[in-house]
Amino acid sequence: MADNFESLSRIKCKALLDKVMSPEEAAALIPSGVTVGMSGFTGSGYPKRVPAALAKRILEEHAKGKPFKINVWTGASTAPELDGVLAEADGINMRLPYQSDPTCRQKINSGQMHYMDIHLSHVAQYAWFGFLGKLNIAVIEVVGIREDGTLIPAASVGNNKTWIDQADQVIIEVNYALSEKLEGMHDIYYGTALPPHRKPVLINEPDDRIGTPYYHCPPEKIIAVVETYDKDRVNRFSEPDEVSKKIATHILNFLKEEVRKGVLPPNLLPLQSGVGDVSNAVISGLEHGDFDNLTAYTEVIQDGMLGLIKSGKLKMVSATSLSLSPEGVEELNANIDFYRERIILRTQEISNHPEVIRRLGTIAINGMIEADIYGNVNSTHIMGSAIMNGIGGSGDFARNSFLSFFVRPSIAKDGDVSAIVPMVSHVDHTEHDVQIIVTEQGLADLRGLSPRQRAEKIIENCAHPDYKEKLRDYFTRAQQHGAQHTPHILSEALSWHDKYLKTGSMK
Amino acid sequence: MADNFESLSRIKCKALLDKVMSPEEAAALIPSGVTVGMSGFTGSGYPKRVPAALAKRILEEHAKGKPFKINVWTGASTAPELDGVLAEADGINMRLPYQSDPTCRQKINSGQMHYMDIHLSHVAQYAWFGFLGKLNIAVIEVVGIREDGTLIPAASVGNNKTWIDQADQVIIEVNYALSEKLEGMHDIYYGTALPPHRKPVLINEPDDRIGTPYYHCPPEKIIAVVETYDKDRVNRFSEPDEVSKKIATHILNFLKEEVRKGVLPPNLLPLQSGVGDVSNAVISGLEHGDFDNLTAYTEVIQDGMLGLIKSGKLKMVSATSLSLSPEGVEELNANIDFYRERIILRTQEISNHPEVIRRLGTIAINGMIEADIYGNVNSTHIMGSAIMNGIGGSGDFARNSFLSFFVRPSIAKDGDVSAIVPMVSHVDHTEHDVQIIVTEQGLADLRGLSPRQRAEKIIENCAHPDYKEKLRDYFTRAQQHGAQHTPHILSEALSWHDKYLKTGSMK
Repeated sequence: MADNFESLSRIKCKALLDKVMSPEEAAALIPSGVTVGMSGFTGSGYPKRVPAALAKRILEEHAKGKPFKINVWTGASTAPELDGVLAEADGINMRLPYQSDPTCRQKINSGQMHYMDIHLSHVAQYAWFGFLGKLNIAVIEVVGIREDGTLIPAASVGNNKTWIDQADQVIIEVNYALSEKLEGMHDIYYGTALPPHRKPVLINEPDDRIGTPYYHCPPEKIIAVVETYDKDRVNRFSEPDEVSKKIATHILNFLKEEVRKGVLPPNLLPLQSGVGDVSNAVISGLEHGDFDNLTAYTEVIQDGMLGLIKSGKLKMVSATSLSLSPEGVEELNANIDFYRERIILRTQEISNHPEVIRRLGTIAINGMIEADIYGNVNSTHIMGSAIMNGIGGSGDFARNSFLSFFVRPSIAKDGDVSAIVPMVSHVDHTEHDVQIIVTEQGLADLRGLSPRQRAEKIIENCAHPDYKEKLRDYFTRAQQHGAQHTPHILSEALSWHDKYLKTGSMK
Repeated sequence: MADNFESLSRIKCKALLDKVMSPEEAAALIPSGVTVGMSGFTGSGYPKRVPAALAKRILEEHAKGKPFKINVWTGASTAPELDGVLAEADGINMRLPYQSDPTCRQKINSGQMHYMDIHLSHVAQYAWFGFLGKLNIAVIEVVGIREDGTLIPAASVGNNKTWIDQADQVIIEVNYALSEKLEGMHDIYYGTALPPHRKPVLINEPDDRIGTPYYHCPPEKIIAVVETYDKDRVNRFSEPDEVSKKIATHILNFLKEEVRKGVLPPNLLPLQSGVGDVSNAVISGLEHGDFDNLTAYTEVIQDGMLGLIKSGKLKMVSATSLSLSPEGVEELNANIDFYRERIILRTQEISNHPEVIRRLGTIAINGMIEADIYGNVNSTHIMGSAIMNGIGGSGDFARNSFLSFFVRPSIAKDGDVSAIVPMVSHVDHTEHDVQIIVTEQGLADLRGLSPRQRAEKIIENCAHPDYKEKLRDYFTRAQQHGAQHTPHILSEALSWHDKYLKTGSMK
């Protein structure tokens, strides 16, 4: 099968040559009822062919009236080729720890699929502890297999090290689309242990290396090797819109002021930034701003960060995933020696480790769905019940960072939804974990404030003018109502969401 | 003034002898508008006389029509002699990070006092970062001042090291009621730094020492030394009631089963246990149970733990506070050399450090006010608005422990309140942070479950029979209602609390 490619050239371990097979043959080795740990983090580094072949098989079995479902664990979100096809085939029983696929989401929200939404730093250790049940099979994308059987990781690391270690059997997809010269960029930490045998994770700077560049997997565990040449499906980001630029400007001005006051060093602290328009606008702002010698300790590297590295502003980035558009991959491949010195890809239990995040004192910028007037943040649920994506690493960073921002435009759905509400319909980040809220309207710095003080700042600085008066009215009436630590009118607290569900608008 | 005591014998530093004064004279050095960091953690180690003298002065100023308020920071809860008198005098503007005093609570809930409820591990670093504003004065209880001016800590450490470092001026209360032989029990860590200069906290076992036994304070910062001989006001715990014993039994049986399955080692992992009846029942159960060579990495040591140490079952305890009844203090003093080898008192940023907690893999047992059917936990608010005490260290431990339990009786107020509700009225621990919920009815192990799976377990295993059918009914109807990831009927989700507020019962 490998004749279409570079003729086996990336499978250097002789013992594995006779394991090379088609995606269909490999998928046939996955029985119903098993738990499969797949590679993939933010649409990057996911297996491209075996999941599709498996989905086809599941559909065939279903057509015969036979049940066929598996549990699917990943690093984070994948792509239509994995989550999409398996969800479409009704092939998933339990999905964890994060997804962002429209079909997957629809199946979860219609009750056809279970989903467990976990802090990304918890996933690997919960698997080691046995808290999630037995992992049967791992399906992992790599860019090559070395003579000694060690595996060269692909564009994302995620939980791959853990899946390979924990699974009884391993299926490898060797992807020829990404440069083999990624070799040496990764840092796979093998110092993990179970309590009471754990030791400190000795990362004191974002560029400290504590592992090896390869996954170790006994060749006898590998039951199939599939060759692919498919690219990660990542879209090039469009230019940030005006609203995102305004939010980014609020953040950057705030950081400048903190540097002026001596709270932050002139080169800031390691940046963590979620995925999306605001993050891109912040990165674009940094590229044209005054901060130099920046570093990042984050989850995902997107196109914009390559630009920031190239500009010399960003000295180095630690992450767990390279989520690049085809243009980004081209840029990376063309200058791989330059980037390899400035990028480290780690396992996600290390990229998101509370110990390391708190030690480094990162500056975290994460999106949200809504915040309430007291500073509780909902990152995951639409109107209390429907999952959007998941908490991802936002909790790991929000609680442990030096500074933490939650950001989003103040309205959505053409103004029918307010991002600032009396009470959030689901809480992912509590009042104890939320420092700074930013919309295009402004920034609310909640550090050191009581709930009532927070409410004033959030309403005045962050709410959209269309909702400001209604929020003030709720807050005023709540203060005439009952106990005054966190004034609420419980019969009204969720009425904005209820109204939206019934009328299509919070207005 | 010291003639009543052992005549200055505990103030060995000559430079400080002329700073000895009455509580009233010391209180006169505290002006209105300042922020004061006081010692005190769980009713232990708080200054006994200066706060009362200050409260008297505040009342006198108020009587003259003059405003007088201060901000009060502590380790955690104190006692009527501190929180009680200052709140009663309307002398507190902002209180943080934890309180449990009835007067203080009443003033907060009537809107006369601001309160910021913070993770205990965050407090010291937020002060170092400047996030809480300037700390002006520290008032710290110690058991002695050594010749070189170093201070021998008293029964709790809390944030004392940080308050002494950060404040411009320091007032010391030397308490003669506690044995000077506490000297050597404490481990005050001076290796803290601000990012980007932080290093690992090198605690790999609960009994690792990484600091010195003393607080360091330049004598010129000390503006007053007050001598006291008052005991900490801690009540002896009564024998656990039947409900608490049932909850403890569920927990202990669960731990036994985890040992049998090989998930936990035979001597378990370091225990963390909140304060209260269930904790006492667990400790009592351990004293009469089969586990040996136990350790604890916790916040507070209560009488029961001394018994567990004495029995030989508990090898050693690390904590930040000795919260002992007069009988407990007597036992400690009588066997101080024995206990000093087995107890370490640390600063609270270390006792509660996520890095250390995750490394050690503690077993956390914390109380709660209510949990909802999806596993969100409210630890702080009564009916959404009224603060009870605060989150304390429960968040530090719940998110980072190996195992984490949230416990309470299934009903309260003679059955008018259910501890299990459709939606909690405030969230302190999100669905992502809650592993195991226990009431006297049973235990719900939520690890690896989706929200709907959790709801079934929590309702069936934990709810009181009086509320089980109503919860099933809500869950069933919510599943016919809207999106199915976390089924809710928003117009009804908080109706149990609303009904309680309006009728005095959730029934």
